Amino acid sequence: MTDIAPARPTARPVTEDGGTQLLHDYIAACSNWGRWGEDDQVGALNLVGPEQVVRAAGLVRRGTPISLTMPYDQTGPQPGGFRNNPQLLLTATGTDHVGNAQDPLPGGFGPSRGFGFSDDVVVMATQCGTQWDSLSHIFWEGRMFNGRSAGQVTTRGAEANGIENFTGRIVMRGVLVDVPAHRGVAALDPGEAVGPAEVDAFLDAHDLSVAPGDALLVRTGFMASRRGAWGDYAGGAAPGLSLHMAPWLRAHDVAAVATDTWGVEVRPNEIDYFQPLHVVSLVHGGVAFGEMFDLDALAQDCARDGVYEFMFVASPLPLTGASGSPVSALAIK
Amino acid sequence: MTDIAPARPTARPVTEDGGTQLLHDYIAACSNWGRWGEDDQVGALNLVGPEQVVRAAGLVRRGTPISLTMPYDQTGPQPGGFRNNPQLLLTATGTDHVGNAQDPLPGGFGPSRGFGFSDDVVVMATQCGTQWDSLSHIFWEGRMFNGRSAGQVTTRGAEANGIENFTGRIVMRGVLVDVPAHRGVAALDPGEAVGPAEVDAFLDAHDLSVAPGDALLVRTGFMASRRGAWGDYAGGAAPGLSLHMAPWLRAHDVAAVATDTWGVEVRPNEIDYFQPLHVVSLVHGGVAFGEMFDLDALAQDCARDGVYEFMFVASPLPLTGASGSPVSALAIK
Amino acid sequence: MTDIAPARPTARPVTEDGGTQLLHDYIAACSNWGRWGEDDQVGALNLVGPEQVVRAAGLVRRGTPISLTMPYDQTGPQPGGFRNNPQLLLTATGTDHVGNAQDPLPGGFGPSRGFGFSDDVVVMATQCGTQWDSLSHIFWEGRMFNGRSAGQVTTRGAEANGIENFTGRIVMRGVLVDVPAHRGVAALDPGEAVGPAEVDAFLDAHDLSVAPGDALLVRTGFMASRRGAWGDYAGGAAPGLSLHMAPWLRAHDVAAVATDTWGVEVRPNEIDYFQPLHVVSLVHGGVAFGEMFDLDALAQDCARDGVYEFMFVASPLPLTGASGSPVSALAIK
Amino acid sequence: MTDIAPARPTARPVTEDGGTQLLHDYIAACSNWGRWGEDDQVGALNLVGPEQVVRAAGLVRRGTPISLTMPYDQTGPQPGGFRNNPQLLLTATGTDHVGNAQDPLPGGFGPSRGFGFSDDVVVMATQCGTQWDSLSHIFWEGRMFNGRSAGQVTTRGAEANGIENFTGRIVMRGVLVDVPAHRGVAALDPGEAVGPAEVDAFLDAHDLSVAPGDALLVRTGFMASRRGAWGDYAGGAAPGLSLHMAPWLRAHDVAAVATDTWGVEVRPNEIDYFQPLHVVSLVHGGVAFGEMFDLDALAQDCARDGVYEFMFVASPLPLTGASGSPVSALAIK
Repeated sequence: MTDIAPARPTARPVTEDGGTQLLHDYIAACSNWGRWGEDDQVGALNLVGPEQVVRAAGLVRRGTPISLTMPYDQTGPQPGGFRNNPQLLLTATGTDHVGNAQDPLPGGFGPSRGFGFSDDVVVMATQCGTQWDSLSHIFWEGRMFNGRSAGQVTTRGAEANGIENFTGRIVMRGVLVDVPAHRGVAALDPGEAVGPAEVDAFLDAHDLSVAPGDALLVRTGFMASRRGAWGDYAGGAAPGLSLHMAPWLRAHDVAAVATDTWGVEVRPNEIDYFQPLHVVSLVHGGVAFGEMFDLDALAQDCARDGVYEFMFVASPLPLTGASGSPVSALAIK
Repeated sequence: MTDIAPARPTARPVTEDGGTQLLHDYIAACSNWGRWGEDDQVGALNLVGPEQVVRAAGLVRRGTPISLTMPYDQTGPQPGGFRNNPQLLLTATGTDHVGNAQDPLPGGFGPSRGFGFSDDVVVMATQCGTQWDSLSHIFWEGRMFNGRSAGQVTTRGAEANGIENFTGRIVMRGVLVDVPAHRGVAALDPGEAVGPAEVDAFLDAHDLSVAPGDALLVRTGFMASRRGAWGDYAGGAAPGLSLHMAPWLRAHDVAAVATDTWGVEVRPNEIDYFQPLHVVSLVHGGVAFGEMFDLDALAQDCARDGVYEFMFVASPLPLTGASGSPVSALAIK
Repeated sequence: MTDIAPARPTARPVTEDGGTQLLHDYIAACSNWGRWGEDDQVGALNLVGPEQVVRAAGLVRRGTPISLTMPYDQTGPQPGGFRNNPQLLLTATGTDHVGNAQDPLPGGFGPSRGFGFSDDVVVMATQCGTQWDSLSHIFWEGRMFNGRSAGQVTTRGAEANGIENFTGRIVMRGVLVDVPAHRGVAALDPGEAVGPAEVDAFLDAHDLSVAPGDALLVRTGFMASRRGAWGDYAGGAAPGLSLHMAPWLRAHDVAAVATDTWGVEVRPNEIDYFQPLHVVSLVHGGVAFGEMFDLDALAQDCARDGVYEFMFVASPLPLTGASGSPVSALAIK
Repeated sequence: MTDIAPARPTARPVTEDGGTQLLHDYIAACSNWGRWGEDDQVGALNLVGPEQVVRAAGLVRRGTPISLTMPYDQTGPQPGGFRNNPQLLLTATGTDHVGNAQDPLPGGFGPSRGFGFSDDVVVMATQCGTQWDSLSHIFWEGRMFNGRSAGQVTTRGAEANGIENFTGRIVMRGVLVDVPAHRGVAALDPGEAVGPAEVDAFLDAHDLSVAPGDALLVRTGFMASRRGAWGDYAGGAAPGLSLHMAPWLRAHDVAAVATDTWGVEVRPNEIDYFQPLHVVSLVHGGVAFGEMFDLDALAQDCARDGVYEFMFVASPLPLTGASGSPVSALAIK
C-alpha cells in the first residue's frame, strides 16, 4: 500500500494521479463487504457483541452521564440552502391555553376544565446537527456498503442500509482523543489533518489502547472555536481525520468514529476526491460515522479526572430508510 | 386523602363531584413544586444522581441492549389530523447518483468523480411515536411544572421546562411491570386501568422493589394488540395507569414512567377531567412521562430470563423549547 | 386509428393487447413534441396568444368572478400516505399577542407598543387539492413533454418543464361542460367515462364551439357527491374523461383541461395502462391538466344564466421546478 | 388632523410624542370598522363590485398578461430565521423512474408499464415572497380588522379574517405608480418614503386618477436593486409608502395596495411605532396589502406603451385561516 502520509499531515499531497491509486489501495485494504454476510446492513457495529457491552457498562464509575449533542434549534450550524437548521413549529401553545383558546380542547377531547397542553412539529434535516450517517448515506460508483446498489435509495428512502439498522446497536466503550489538548492549542485550524501517528501518541500518553468494537471520538476543537459564529462550519474548510486513518480504523476494528466537525474528515480533502475517508471507511468499511458531536464538556471532564474511556450510548432514532439521524449521544463515566 | 380506588379499577367511579375533590387532594399530596428550587426545570429526574447511574450500569449483565422505540415512518399509529405520522423527504437519492444527476455534486462540492450521497428532511410531530413529554407539555389552570406560567410557552417554543432539560438525564434503573403476563391475558382491554395493588403484586411476585429515581415501565399489551391496525390507538379508548397510581409514584419517588399506550393513563379517564394523572404526576409531580414505548421485545426477554430490571437509557433529543421528543430508548441487560 | 370508443364508454374495453396499439396510435396522432420548437416548455399553452386573451376578457359581462378552488386545509380530500392534506403551522399568533408574548416583537423588530401579528408556514403537497400538473409531472418510457429525459427531474426539482413555465400563461376563454346536468343526474358514478360524443352533444345543446387555446372544464359531479366524506376520492375509482378524448382535445387544440375529479381521466382506466390520457395528452400533447377544480358554484351560475363560457384566469404559483402547483382559479363572467 | 408630512418625506419626523397623536388621528380618520357590517371579513375589497370587474376587463386591450410574482425557491429574499425561503421536497422523481424504482408505481397504482411521475411537497412561509397579507395578519392593541379579538388567531389558524376571505375577490383595475421612473433614478434608497404629493404628481403626469375599488401598485425599484443579492431586503431598511398615504388611500377608497418591497411601508418607520401604515390602513382600513410584488416587467411594459392601468387579477390561495398567501398576480393589458 502506498504510504504518502506525513507524521502530521496538514497539506494536500502531491501525487501525479490525484490520489487515485491510494484511494483504490485503501478501498481494497479496508473493505468489509461480505465480512458479516451478504444480508448485513450494520457493518462494523457487528463488532459490538455482549462482551463489548458489558465491558462498556463496567466503565461507569462515577455515575456521570455527559451529553454530546448540540441543541437542535435555529442557533445551529446550518446556514440554510443545502441543509437548514431545524424549525420547531408549535401546534398548540400555553398562550392559547391562557387565552382560553383551548376550550374545548383541540383534538376533540372535550371541555378543558382547567387542562391545557402544548404540541409541536419539527422540520429537520436529519443531518442538521449532531448525527450518525447511515450506511445508505454515501455511494461510491453506484454502490453503497456491502455492495448494494445505490439505486435502492429512492425518494421513498433507503430500502436497505437505512439508519434504523443502527438503532439499539450503538452501545459500547468510547475513547476520546483530544487533539488540541495534546498539541497544546485551543483548536486545530481548518485544513489540519489528524493522522494515525498523532492518535497513537495520544493513546500512548494516556495509557490507552483501542479494541475491536470501540467507538473513537476525536476532538479537534473546531466546534468550540466556531460556536455561535458558525460561518462555513457546515461544509467549508475544517480540521478532521486524515484519509490515512482508514487503515488504522480497519486494523483496530473500530466500530464507530465521531468528531466535533461537520464531516469527520479534514477539508479540503487530501486527495482529488470528495470525502475519501467516507468512501473507504464508511462505504467499504461499514464504520458508523458520527458528525458534529459536541465533545467539549466531555473533554473538560476527561482532563479533570484523567479518564478518557467511558460507556458510550448513542443509539439513533429508527427513522426508516433515512440517510442519518439526530441522536442524543451520551458518554457515561 | 379520599380513596375511591377499587383493587382493579376498570370503570369510571361514580362520585357526585365528578372527581374534583379527589383531583385536588392528589395534587396537594403529590406536588413537587419548589422541592428542587424555584429554578428547577427537571422535576423528578433530580432523583437520579450518580449513585443511581452507577447502580443502573451494574444491571448490565448479559450485554444485551433492547430497543424500546417504534419505527418512525408512515406505518406509525397517527392517523393524521391531530398529529401525523412522520414524513421522510429525500433531498438527494441514490437514483439521482446512478442517473448521473449528482455530477457536479449538490451543495457546491465539485465534480463527483464516483462519489454520491443521499440526504433527507423529516417532518415530524414530536409526539408522533415513542416519545417523552416535556414538563412544558401539560398545563393546569394556567400553570406548568414548578408553578411557571403556561404563557411562557408561545409559538417560539417553551421558554422554560422544554424537553432539552431532560437531555442527558434519563439514565437510570428501569423496572418492567408486564401486566398482561401477570393477568395471563394477551392484552388489557381499552378502559382497563392498572392500579397500585396490581403493580405491587407484580413486583412482589418478581421479588422486586422500586427505588427513588427508578423508571417504571408498564406494559399493557395494547401496542401488541393494535400493531399495524392502529385504529384509534392514538387518542381513543385504551388501557393504562389508573389515576390512583399518582400517590404510589410519589411515595416511591419514581423519576419516569412509560407505557406502551398513547397516553400513559387509562382512557376514558376515570374522573370527569382529561388526563388527570398528567395533571397530578406530570404538572405537579414533575415525573417524566414516556408514551408509545414498545415494550414487547423487552417483555419477551424478561420472561425468558426472569429479570425485570435493567439499565434504562432514553435521553431525548435537545429540541430546544419542544413539548416532547422522539427518543431511541434502550433497556440494557 | 383504431376506434374502440362506444358512444358513452362506461366499461373497460376488451382488446387482446390491453390497449397497447390504441395507446401508441393515439400518441402518434396527438403528439405536439417539437411543434413549438425544441426549447419549448409550455406546450399547448402556446395556443393562447394576445387574440385569445382579448377574446377571453370580452366574456366578462356581468362582472362576477367565481372561485374554482377548494379550501386548502385539513378538511381536504387527501387521506394521507401518498399525499397529505396541507398543514398550516402558525409561527406567531394572536393569543401570543394578547398574552403579552410579542413584546419585544419576534424578528428583532423592537418593542411592540400595541402592535402584534400572526405568521405561518404551510407544509403542502403541491397536488393536494385544486392544482395544475406541470409538464414535468408525468413520464412515459423515460421521457417527458417535448422529448426531454425524465432524468432531468431530480430531488432538486425539474430542470425543465416545471410548473413555473405555466405562470402567467393561463388566461384564456373557458368553457364548462356540465355532464351530470346534461344527463339529468346528480353525479356520474365512479368508472363512468365522458367521451367526445357527449362533449359534442353538450356543446351543441348550448350552441357553443371550442376554439384553439380554450380551456375545457368538465364537471362530473364527483366532487359534489363526495365533499366532506372523501373516502377514496383521491386515487380510487372515479368518473372522468375517456381516453378517447385525446384525439378530440388535439383536433380542437385545447390548451388546458380541468375536471372536478382527482385525476382528470376515468378510473379504473379503460386500457391496461395507468392514466393513459395523461400519457397521450399531457406527456405528448403538452396539454395543461387541472385537477380537483371545484366547478359546482360555476355550474350553478351557468345554469342560471345559460352562459357556459367565461374568462378563465388560473395562473399557478411559480414554484420553481415543481411537478404542480395549487392555484386560485377563477371563472369571470 | 395633524399634518407632519413633508413633500417628499425621507426622514423620521421629530414630534415630541413619537407620533402617538398622529397615529391615533389617522386611525380615527381612516377606520372602516363596521362600514360593511359587523360580520364583514373582506374589508376594502367590498369596494370591488361587478361594475369594477367589468371596467377592469375592459382594460385588456393588447392581450398581454404580465406576471408580478417572484419565483418561489431557494434564491428568494428570505435569509432564514424569521421566515425561510420555500423548500421544495420531491417525493417522486424522474431519476427514480429512469432507475426503475417506480415499478410497481408508488401509491399502490400497480405495474408502471412505461408510466412514471414526479411529485413534491413544499414547506413555505406563507409570506416568504410575493404575497397578500390577510386581515388576520396584523393586530393593534388586541384587535384585528372590524374589531375582532386577536385571540381568535390561535395555533389552529384564524377563526376569522383569514386569507381565504380574499380568494376570488382580487379582480379589479390596477394602476402602477413607478416612482423611480418619475424621479429619474434607478431605485429609491432605503428610508425614502413615497407620500401623497408624489403619487398625485405621477398620476397627473400620466393623466390618471384612482377610483374606488382600484388596486394601487407602487414601484420603488428596491427589488430591482437587490435582486439576487438580497441582504436585509426582508425586514431591513427599505423605501416604501409614507404613513401619510393612509388618509390618501382612505379618501380614494383604494381596495388594495402593493409594492416591490418587503413590507409596503418605508423602513425605518416614520414614527416611533412599528409598521404604522399597517396599523392604520390594514387593521383599521381593511385594505389588502400586497408585498414583494415584482413590478419590474410591468414597469418596462408601461414605459413602452405609456399605459399605466390594467386588469389586475391576483386572487390568493384559500389557505384556511392563514395570515397571508403566496399569489400568482397578473397585470393583463
